[in-house]
Amino acid sequence: MARKHNFSAGPAFMPLSVIEQIQATLPELGETGQGLMEISHRSKPFEAIRDSAEARLRRLMGIPEGYAVLFLQGGASMQFYMHARNLLAGPDDKADIILTGRWSDNAIKEMRRCGDVAAAWQLSGDLNHVPQPGDALNLRDDARYVHFTSNNTVYGSQFHALPETDKPLVSDMSSDICSRPVDVSRHAIIYAGAQKNLGPSGVTAVIVSPWALEQSSRVDATIPGGLPSMLDYRLMAKKDSMFNTPNTLGIFALEKMLAWIEDGGGVEAMEARNQRKADALYAEIDRSGFWTGCTTVESRSLMNPTWRGPSAALDTTFVAEATAAGLLGLKGHRSVGGLRASIYNACEQSSIEALVSFMQDFERRHG
Amino acid sequence: MARKHNFSAGPAFMPLSVIEQIQATLPELGETGQGLMEISHRSKPFEAIRDSAEARLRRLMGIPEGYAVLFLQGGASMQFYMHARNLLAGPDDKADIILTGRWSDNAIKEMRRCGDVAAAWQLSGDLNHVPQPGDALNLRDDARYVHFTSNNTVYGSQFHALPETDKPLVSDMSSDICSRPVDVSRHAIIYAGAQKNLGPSGVTAVIVSPWALEQSSRVDATIPGGLPSMLDYRLMAKKDSMFNTPNTLGIFALEKMLAWIEDGGGVEAMEARNQRKADALYAEIDRSGFWTGCTTVESRSLMNPTWRGPSAALDTTFVAEATAAGLLGLKGHRSVGGLRASIYNACEQSSIEALVSFMQDFERRHG
Repeated sequence: MARKHNFSAGPAFMPLSVIEQIQATLPELGETGQGLMEISHRSKPFEAIRDSAEARLRRLMGIPEGYAVLFLQGGASMQFYMHARNLLAGPDDKADIILTGRWSDNAIKEMRRCGDVAAAWQLSGDLNHVPQPGDALNLRDDARYVHFTSNNTVYGSQFHALPETDKPLVSDMSSDICSRPVDVSRHAIIYAGAQKNLGPSGVTAVIVSPWALEQSSRVDATIPGGLPSMLDYRLMAKKDSMFNTPNTLGIFALEKMLAWIEDGGGVEAMEARNQRKADALYAEIDRSGFWTGCTTVESRSLMNPTWRGPSAALDTTFVAEATAAGLLGLKGHRSVGGLRASIYNACEQSSIEALVSFMQDFERRHG
Repeated sequence: MARKHNFSAGPAFMPLSVIEQIQATLPELGETGQGLMEISHRSKPFEAIRDSAEARLRRLMGIPEGYAVLFLQGGASMQFYMHARNLLAGPDDKADIILTGRWSDNAIKEMRRCGDVAAAWQLSGDLNHVPQPGDALNLRDDARYVHFTSNNTVYGSQFHALPETDKPLVSDMSSDICSRPVDVSRHAIIYAGAQKNLGPSGVTAVIVSPWALEQSSRVDATIPGGLPSMLDYRLMAKKDSMFNTPNTLGIFALEKMLAWIEDGGGVEAMEARNQRKADALYAEIDRSGFWTGCTTVESRSLMNPTWRGPSAALDTTFVAEATAAGLLGLKGHRSVGGLRASIYNACEQSSIEALVSFMQDFERRHG
């Protein structure tokens, strides 16, 4: 076995200790006589796993009482539509969105199927960034909520403070959930595909406020056909995410990832760890002028630093040489090019050191 | 490790050889330097896995050219709505459904959100069954398609011939896909949650005909807001089920399950194997009069035989004693009670023998 330095954007690197726990349970989970993938989701052992995953997420994020915690399928792309379908009853219902890159562009497309959705802010200029405290947001008084993408995986930018508004927030937190403390009480809905900070792909964590659950009832009563069962937050909450068979292995893996975070000191410890890693990488990006960061300094992501070399051709060479040297997944997203290192919670400081050392070597040879 | 006889309805028993292949790839998939859960869904190794899963399913089921093969999330419950959302544009569009038990009852609820859906046949009487060749179906001339549940997991009944109609068929094949040959060309859509015959929960195989894909375009143009991206078969087909991050481990496991079926001789060999197992179990149910089958003989399921003992109290005792003896998952579905053995493809003849032997022993002690 030769596990390499893995900087993939998602599915992403996971701690070996978590992987080994999944491995061990595949032929038999505990003393059940059944493997992890073969056990009924209605069984006591699986219910205990699901309950523990929920309890851990509640503790880690400080989720207020009354909020529902769901483990669904379909990823953030399904939530782009599902959250709007639960909150907006048609063209008379308004929401605002902050457009900071690719995933928010995808989100607005799905949200507009359900209501009147307008951009309160839109990325412009050469460098990626997100609105900073004091920047004007063009929010509408009668907007019911404001949607934003807390971290932009493709563009490498991240909100370091919540958007300035009193409206309920809806946040796509796929790429930075549990990487730092967040005030959940300011949010109507938080959703996150698990495959970056919470485990394997195929599970989506969704946190839903009491206000958002009320909206589901309001909308259900007005839209033709009503809310489809699988898209109804109330039903998913009532059934503890087990209206139908959930991704049982995915929820087990997520529980183990949350345990790993808790054992590592929680989200505050993760934030310190992530800051250290990002600082080391950005210091190298800024060191000599050979590399150029793709994001303004104040918007830089702790999860997905993006940068470029002197030419697109050299970026291609960098990716090829890095791959050969055991540093994987450094190619920028196909829509923007350049370079990107995805350094979620599980990424080790030693991987950053290996990357920085390789960047310095590359600069010596090609600079 | 002590793997017991597992008769769970789903998630269900999987071959140990498949489980061991998943185990082996968790820390590193091939020579990639990355584990199965950590590899990008856009990488060549994962694309090869997805492509192989599709090719295997096409070969095994004889899927006609032009049909799309999708691996989605959300299970059959999402397909109850998704298939109807793609085929029915509102109250003027009609579909008929054959109601044979719990899952078709759930399906009609979601389908009615999208159009005018009527029951062409409805289960009645004491014994579970499905319509037989020659039985009258109350089909409407202007129904666009006919939905049926090919095997009823809860009730233990199964169609042994396709419903008699020239209309396009839509089949929930969750609990008997790849357990026997099927004429796919008679179907507009086939869907199946993987967790019974195809692997772990969290993946749904969906087979979509060219006619059904045309309907998506028709419906998309007429419903308010259009088809949500994640519920649009055309988009899922165009993107090879990778519009967003799929359940990568689930698709890998499904590919290994399909390989196991192909290596075992394909769906014809599975049918012979399943017939042998079911024959042995039903022979015991019918042998002495101690047990009573819950389904008419001609509708008996090869996947989920259901039966009862002389009293509900003895059924409870049976489940408890069987569990203690290492025979798991024999309790009937909570909505109907009684006993059920789910004996999908992967269930071994030796598990049937152990169950039959235990039933005889139980009868001696309690008869």
